[in-house]
Amino acid sequence: MSDTYAVIMAGGSGTRFWPASRKRRPKQLLPLAGGDEPLIAATTRRLEGIVSASDTLIVTSEILADATAAAVPGLPRQNVLAEPIGRNTAPCVGWAAARVARDNPEAVIAVLPADHHIARPDDYRAVIEQAIAAARGGDLVTVGIQPNRPETGYGYIEVGDAIGDGVHRARRFVEKPSRSRAEQFLAAGTFLWNSGMFFFRADAILAAIRQHLPGLGEALEEFDEAAARSPEAEAECVAARYGDLPSVSIDHGVMEKVDQVAVVPGEFGWSDVGSWTSAWHLAEKDENENALPADAIVIDTKGSYIQAPAGKLIAVVGLEDMVVVDTEDALLIMPKARDQEVRDIVEALRARKDERL
Amino acid sequence: MSDTYAVIMAGGSGTRFWPASRKRRPKQLLPLAGGDEPLIAATTRRLEGIVSASDTLIVTSEILADATAAAVPGLPRQNVLAEPIGRNTAPCVGWAAARVARDNPEAVIAVLPADHHIARPDDYRAVIEQAIAAARGGDLVTVGIQPNRPETGYGYIEVGDAIGDGVHRARRFVEKPSRSRAEQFLAAGTFLWNSGMFFFRADAILAAIRQHLPGLGEALEEFDEAAARSPEAEAECVAARYGDLPSVSIDHGVMEKVDQVAVVPGEFGWSDVGSWTSAWHLAEKDENENALPADAIVIDTKGSYIQAPAGKLIAVVGLEDMVVVDTEDALLIMPKARDQEVRDIVEALRARKDERL
Repeated sequence: MSDTYAVIMAGGSGTRFWPASRKRRPKQLLPLAGGDEPLIAATTRRLEGIVSASDTLIVTSEILADATAAAVPGLPRQNVLAEPIGRNTAPCVGWAAARVARDNPEAVIAVLPADHHIARPDDYRAVIEQAIAAARGGDLVTVGIQPNRPETGYGYIEVGDAIGDGVHRARRFVEKPSRSRAEQFLAAGTFLWNSGMFFFRADAILAAIRQHLPGLGEALEEFDEAAARSPEAEAECVAARYGDLPSVSIDHGVMEKVDQVAVVPGEFGWSDVGSWTSAWHLAEKDENENALPADAIVIDTKGSYIQAPAGKLIAVVGLEDMVVVDTEDALLIMPKARDQEVRDIVEALRARKDERL
Repeated sequence: MSDTYAVIMAGGSGTRFWPASRKRRPKQLLPLAGGDEPLIAATTRRLEGIVSASDTLIVTSEILADATAAAVPGLPRQNVLAEPIGRNTAPCVGWAAARVARDNPEAVIAVLPADHHIARPDDYRAVIEQAIAAARGGDLVTVGIQPNRPETGYGYIEVGDAIGDGVHRARRFVEKPSRSRAEQFLAAGTFLWNSGMFFFRADAILAAIRQHLPGLGEALEEFDEAAARSPEAEAECVAARYGDLPSVSIDHGVMEKVDQVAVVPGEFGWSDVGSWTSAWHLAEKDENENALPADAIVIDTKGSYIQAPAGKLIAVVGLEDMVVVDTEDALLIMPKARDQEVRDIVEALRARKDERL
């Protein structure tokens, strides 16, 4: 019976990384931070010494379950929770918490996104351990990232009074702000980015779910009753009920509604790897700021990110600040500055029911 | 016994079209003028009604012989003359002329490069028929292209007195000129581009070869003696002697040295398909001047040439005047204006003995 578990949320479809990411091979299964290690494998490896693979649950979609299990070394197959349909993060966290509670209701769960990059894992582990310790007493805890720019793409957390060593009261959660509000937040110095990492005891989050999302709470009790009969019965119950669960994030559905949330500020080179340009930022680059295959033939090219299958020869002349992503069946070429338009491409593929989506 | 033959010169390696062209798949085997038809197939098809496939010889290198035969519908396999080593065009033309002379020494041979594009084939055929008729009397005849720009990449022919219907004396051949000389030629109006197309009776060119390239003349007599024994004996003789033949063009080695060369001026939308930009010029383009696969997803892109294997999805954002050539094992991206730098890429591949050459 362990007293610390990890729950990795790995349901993302990662349309911003097309054509490397696909419906069946999303962002978290790709080595987007350089090297060969998929982001999800890096996520579990970073927890070494804090949570073992056997105490790590990964929640993902049914079509990704096998690929996800294969991507994480040492992960028992039954630790992959396959959602029949995506319902945002509250049902995902609730289901995993119910599983953990059957082993040990007082165990602390570290809920972590599968697709982030951490530049300084030792600093990260220190913060995670603080957050786990803070959750041990029953608080719902989040980690907030010290912002270094007025980012409008993230939610923020306003920090309140200190309540322990490195732990503060969270005064409030704030939605993705306008540019001017983001600048105020940065200037104020009391706002952190909401990292999407949460820490709580299984019994604490389940109690909060019962209070704030009672429909989900009831479904989780049904899951428990079915699981008491057999794993097959649980799977049947999940298949029958999941589609009707509320599609809401654990942030909105629970954390923001709870009075006493704690926040641990962290600074460990966090990146949510949100675009090809962020992949370029994270990648190893040559003297011309290019990230590209070692055997590429490169003439007068700089600031570019080029990815291709092994064995494919890349030859480029006169590129500047471009993204080139080549795969077996698709090739994307665009300026780094326009990387958000990948969404438009994916939308066009969806509209024409292209199987290369 | 036919009185008109075609000899297609198809030995080129086409490094300017890497990565579509390769050592084993050069320019003439590619559909570079749009559609699915390789340039060499278009070359033979254009002669329909003038020369039949059974009277067409193709001279190419041994490693390309099978692919060349396969690329030309209806071509008898024995009509492919496989050179053991490339020795420029004089030995190629001489060998083919010796073959033809065994059938009919007085037959006229149309010697044509395999890799040109002709926009107006009817006009072309009319010129070819004039040139064949002019050669019937024993003259060595060339076709000169009416220039429309001061091109420095071609040789020129100065036109002399008219000697028949649409036929002139060729005053002299001129090497690739400087820009200022090319401008003078264009202004003078009496200079034509040397198209590399030649027309002569088999006995006439063989006599000229014996006079101006006696070493080649002797070798061709040996080929004849061996061929009289068996096709295998000819092949052995060719294998033994070809490497020692003078590596010289039929232009320099013979045509320029002959007093009485005739020239037929022609204007039929001729292009030597010399670069990716010329392929773009020849290709069908959309309203934004892009030549690209029909199912490509294209955002804010113009003036670009994009080629990819069937089934490969291309998605581009914000490209302008670019060339993108994607193949199974190599990808080239460059501005159209820098398409000559393909040679540098090929040179780099050669230097590192890359098998994707």
